[in-house]
Amino acid sequence: MHKKVVSVIGGHSCNKEVEEIAIELGKKLTKVVKYLCCGGLSGTMKAVCSGFKAGGGVTIGIIPSYDKKDANNFVDIVIPTGLGLARNVLVVKSADVVVALPGEAGTLSEIAYCLQFGIPVISLGSWDIPGVIKVKTVEEALKEVKKRL
Amino acid sequence: MHKKVVSVIGGHSCNKEVEEIAIELGKKLTKVVKYLCCGGLSGTMKAVCSGFKAGGGVTIGIIPSYDKKDANNFVDIVIPTGLGLARNVLVVKSADVVVALPGEAGTLSEIAYCLQFGIPVISLGSWDIPGVIKVKTVEEALKEVKKRL
Amino acid sequence: MHKKVVSVIGGHSCNKEVEEIAIELGKKLTKVVKYLCCGGLSGTMKAVCSGFKAGGGVTIGIIPSYDKKDANNFVDIVIPTGLGLARNVLVVKSADVVVALPGEAGTLSEIAYCLQFGIPVISLGSWDIPGVIKVKTVEEALKEVKKRL
Amino acid sequence: MHKKVVSVIGGHSCNKEVEEIAIELGKKLTKVVKYLCCGGLSGTMKAVCSGFKAGGGVTIGIIPSYDKKDANNFVDIVIPTGLGLARNVLVVKSADVVVALPGEAGTLSEIAYCLQFGIPVISLGSWDIPGVIKVKTVEEALKEVKKRL
Repeated sequence: MHKKVVSVIGGHSCNKEVEEIAIELGKKLTKVVKYLCCGGLSGTMKAVCSGFKAGGGVTIGIIPSYDKKDANNFVDIVIPTGLGLARNVLVVKSADVVVALPGEAGTLSEIAYCLQFGIPVISLGSWDIPGVIKVKTVEEALKEVKKRL
Repeated sequence: MHKKVVSVIGGHSCNKEVEEIAIELGKKLTKVVKYLCCGGLSGTMKAVCSGFKAGGGVTIGIIPSYDKKDANNFVDIVIPTGLGLARNVLVVKSADVVVALPGEAGTLSEIAYCLQFGIPVISLGSWDIPGVIKVKTVEEALKEVKKRL
Repeated sequence: MHKKVVSVIGGHSCNKEVEEIAIELGKKLTKVVKYLCCGGLSGTMKAVCSGFKAGGGVTIGIIPSYDKKDANNFVDIVIPTGLGLARNVLVVKSADVVVALPGEAGTLSEIAYCLQFGIPVISLGSWDIPGVIKVKTVEEALKEVKKRL
Repeated sequence: MHKKVVSVIGGHSCNKEVEEIAIELGKKLTKVVKYLCCGGLSGTMKAVCSGFKAGGGVTIGIIPSYDKKDANNFVDIVIPTGLGLARNVLVVKSADVVVALPGEAGTLSEIAYCLQFGIPVISLGSWDIPGVIKVKTVEEALKEVKKRL
């Protein structure tokens, strides 16, 4: 049977505060799901992967290039799509629930795809677009993820 | 030499008012550019193509499916990508300037891609996201397009 | 109404003989179709575009990168997909008929896609795979294209 | 660190003999690699996944549609690309080594991509294209896979 997957989206770079939130989110997500998917690169993606690995989970990185080495070191399974930004679609569509951390236009495109696909997207300090589930803490985010898995 | 292209994005369905604006925009765009690109389907896409054809231009429709018949009848050149929503990237990246008409999450993903690529995107009654060029009339939109071609 | 399109596929580099065949093919194709599609790069792609332009046609280049400047100078309409080799699907699916010139693995993948989609593919000195229409001269290729448009 | 992945490609349908070979291949591959990737659908894909699951491995299915239910029941991690046949690129590029079972044009396109990317592709009764590593038995295939992991 197909396994449940949670995707976490967010910026390629992030400040220390967001990094710590991403790590904490990653660690705690291992209690509710075995597989984490993300865009596989740096910033929030690296932080959430490092947390999820620390918690014992398996990480999937769907990257824009053809070079597996572009994925951060905390990605177990690299999908080197070579699709550029079109890979954003795959990052969110692979998930049953998506958590959005702060990010810029790339993150916005992924939130938009969630809304279009009808995939629940939980905004933890990320874009405030009609249709997202806004939360303020990692604990709240986890609660919303659990409800939807 | 590569020809200039303007892409128009917007909803799959639209009310009469937006339809008329799209037709007018299409017609008037023929005065500044020969090739119009869009997602090739119904609603604002069909309306803007019909206006652009009426003005004598050539229309390109980059559609999500493999079936050219899914393109509206005012599309000259159909690119049947079979890529689903990932085709949104191609619609905006093919353009030198993008005009956004009202639309939902699909349109938002396209605006987000414009911002990420650095392609100027003119919002004519569409999403108000930091970075878009907001205008209120077709004439203003044309003026902004001209400046950037 | 949607316009007919012929795609020509073949290698990124080619010898003088194949280059001349590609130019001749391009020129003569303008008598049967107004729009030519190809992968937009160098070698056979550039040669066939130059011939087609010389004959007065309009050329479409569906390129793997996001940079329109990667397209050869004889491409009118550049679709900068950023999809890498996945763009091969689009090059053949955009066509009503495909002509294959000599090429390597990339050309083989495109021929394979033609066969899978059921798009007629005419091999002019290219791969000899069951299902392709083998011809020996540009005139024969043209005859086979005409039959299928 | 990124995990090694072997992809197995082959037809959507297969006879009993090929099915048994695929199951055996899947089972035995678990001794050399933990993650198996494939196109996620029926025929050889389903058979190799069932063998790999029986051997205790984790299976990844990169499918053409957006619907996870289209993946066979032996797929653990479904990547629902919505990319149609363009997903073939991802199936092979995700792998360190590819094994090709009998298949038609789709399999041929994947072999072609392997050759273009320089990914070793072992043909076990599949297409005989210059550049593939031809083997006759599952044991030989395994030996060739091991050498390259």
